[in-house]
Amino acid sequence: MPALFTTTRRVEFGDTDMAGIMHFSNFFRFMEVAECDFLRSCGFTVSWSENGEQRGFPRVSASCDYWKPARFGDLLQITVSVEKIGSKSISYRYDFHRGDEAIAVGRITAVLCRKAADGEMESLVIPDAFRQQLEKQTHSP
Amino acid sequence: MPALFTTTRRVEFGDTDMAGIMHFSNFFRFMEVAECDFLRSCGFTVSWSENGEQRGFPRVSASCDYWKPARFGDLLQITVSVEKIGSKSISYRYDFHRGDEAIAVGRITAVLCRKAADGEMESLVIPDAFRQQLEKQTHSP
Amino acid sequence: MPALFTTTRRVEFGDTDMAGIMHFSNFFRFMEVAECDFLRSCGFTVSWSENGEQRGFPRVSASCDYWKPARFGDLLQITVSVEKIGSKSISYRYDFHRGDEAIAVGRITAVLCRKAADGEMESLVIPDAFRQQLEKQTHSP
Amino acid sequence: MPALFTTTRRVEFGDTDMAGIMHFSNFFRFMEVAECDFLRSCGFTVSWSENGEQRGFPRVSASCDYWKPARFGDLLQITVSVEKIGSKSISYRYDFHRGDEAIAVGRITAVLCRKAADGEMESLVIPDAFRQQLEKQTHSP
Repeated sequence: MPALFTTTRRVEFGDTDMAGIMHFSNFFRFMEVAECDFLRSCGFTVSWSENGEQRGFPRVSASCDYWKPARFGDLLQITVSVEKIGSKSISYRYDFHRGDEAIAVGRITAVLCRKAADGEMESLVIPDAFRQQLEKQTHSP
Repeated sequence: MPALFTTTRRVEFGDTDMAGIMHFSNFFRFMEVAECDFLRSCGFTVSWSENGEQRGFPRVSASCDYWKPARFGDLLQITVSVEKIGSKSISYRYDFHRGDEAIAVGRITAVLCRKAADGEMESLVIPDAFRQQLEKQTHSP
Repeated sequence: MPALFTTTRRVEFGDTDMAGIMHFSNFFRFMEVAECDFLRSCGFTVSWSENGEQRGFPRVSASCDYWKPARFGDLLQITVSVEKIGSKSISYRYDFHRGDEAIAVGRITAVLCRKAADGEMESLVIPDAFRQQLEKQTHSP
Repeated sequence: MPALFTTTRRVEFGDTDMAGIMHFSNFFRFMEVAECDFLRSCGFTVSWSENGEQRGFPRVSASCDYWKPARFGDLLQITVSVEKIGSKSISYRYDFHRGDEAIAVGRITAVLCRKAADGEMESLVIPDAFRQQLEKQTHSP
């Protein structure tokens, strides 16, 4: 199995709250950064224009389990893996570490969509070329 | 059963992203606002000083299922219910509506903690007076 | 002179940082909320579609002077006034108070723009009807 | 004159708003990141404990002029310079570039403070060792 994609992100002052730790909602922003870094590494992105239409991956679910607080200045490693690829959806897993210490684990499920002429989102089947890239990142715990 | 606590919050311009909808992470900020409004309505808060110590409710897990996008200017109703009260933890459920339309449902589990002298968080048993307030808000679907 | 438009906004837990006060960047988010509330009170908005084009008020400058920290739970009054109306731009002033105490003063200059077919912003002359509404809100210190 | 300190930061999806560009308030978050990176490069930080007291650099003013929109995926270069060092305050300037293109210029004035026993901020004289580091970064346009 090839190594899973990992990116790093520092906890900035503005990411903290008055409890002195990273605000819990910012873990979701960090997951998104990791997802974008991962897609960029595959030659893809989370939002683009195609055939004059806006396409992207709106989220249908997101979750996070927090084990240790993250603090200002911490450099977090975020490992991205793909837990499930449906015909139209991708389920990512994000493992947060600070050095050897596991901090949190998050999950996001996103659906490939185009914005139809009436402004509504319409789901699309994930193209094979993209599916094959994602399968390389499959998590096999 | 008494009516469940409901608060409202408008989706602001700065809550949106380039997909033209509320950024998914901001649902977690809205849940926190609803939690604080709920606790305030009970005479409590999410962060306070007691016996010279900082106390609060750090989160151990958070999740959200998104059914419909929320857009700039939408006035969302957020209904707070308590799904489970452990000896030291509370599991909240947040139902998001725009008028009659269900938009999303979120869940947060928080643990009552004090910040010990060494800066570490230490969990505490939830006092009876607070537990009784929470039980009134118990969700019975 | 008619009373100036004032709105209120509570400092939420997620608005604070590890210094225990509202993060300085969030004053700009609060100004935007006040601007939107003000425009809504006039029957306008900050972002809309017209003739199939996206229109809005991108900012060309923003500033804030901070006199007192704002803290979690504070209910801030934000008074909006118009300091200058150019042919295409509006300069707002935002006075932040907590009760009788002046907390901060901010300023934002925004330019009326349409998004041209090539995605670039193009400035527009402010229509007379809108200009007349704004003049009622002129600040005369 | 030695080269001025420059850091880079990518515009993330969550930094954008429904106008399709980086939300104007996030330029202030990027300035803070640059300030922290700069202080870290000098062996300092924006928030620390000393003699059992919390110390830091709360902001007394912040401003930004926006020339070009920043978009999702843009890698911005942020150059930090010191425009003025007072006895207790530092005035930073931040030049934002995307490649050769000037995007924005921001300014922040921060005051060295300690949190007194009553929770109030109290300003302090900037130590000589720190002042000397800052003088190397003086902006001479």
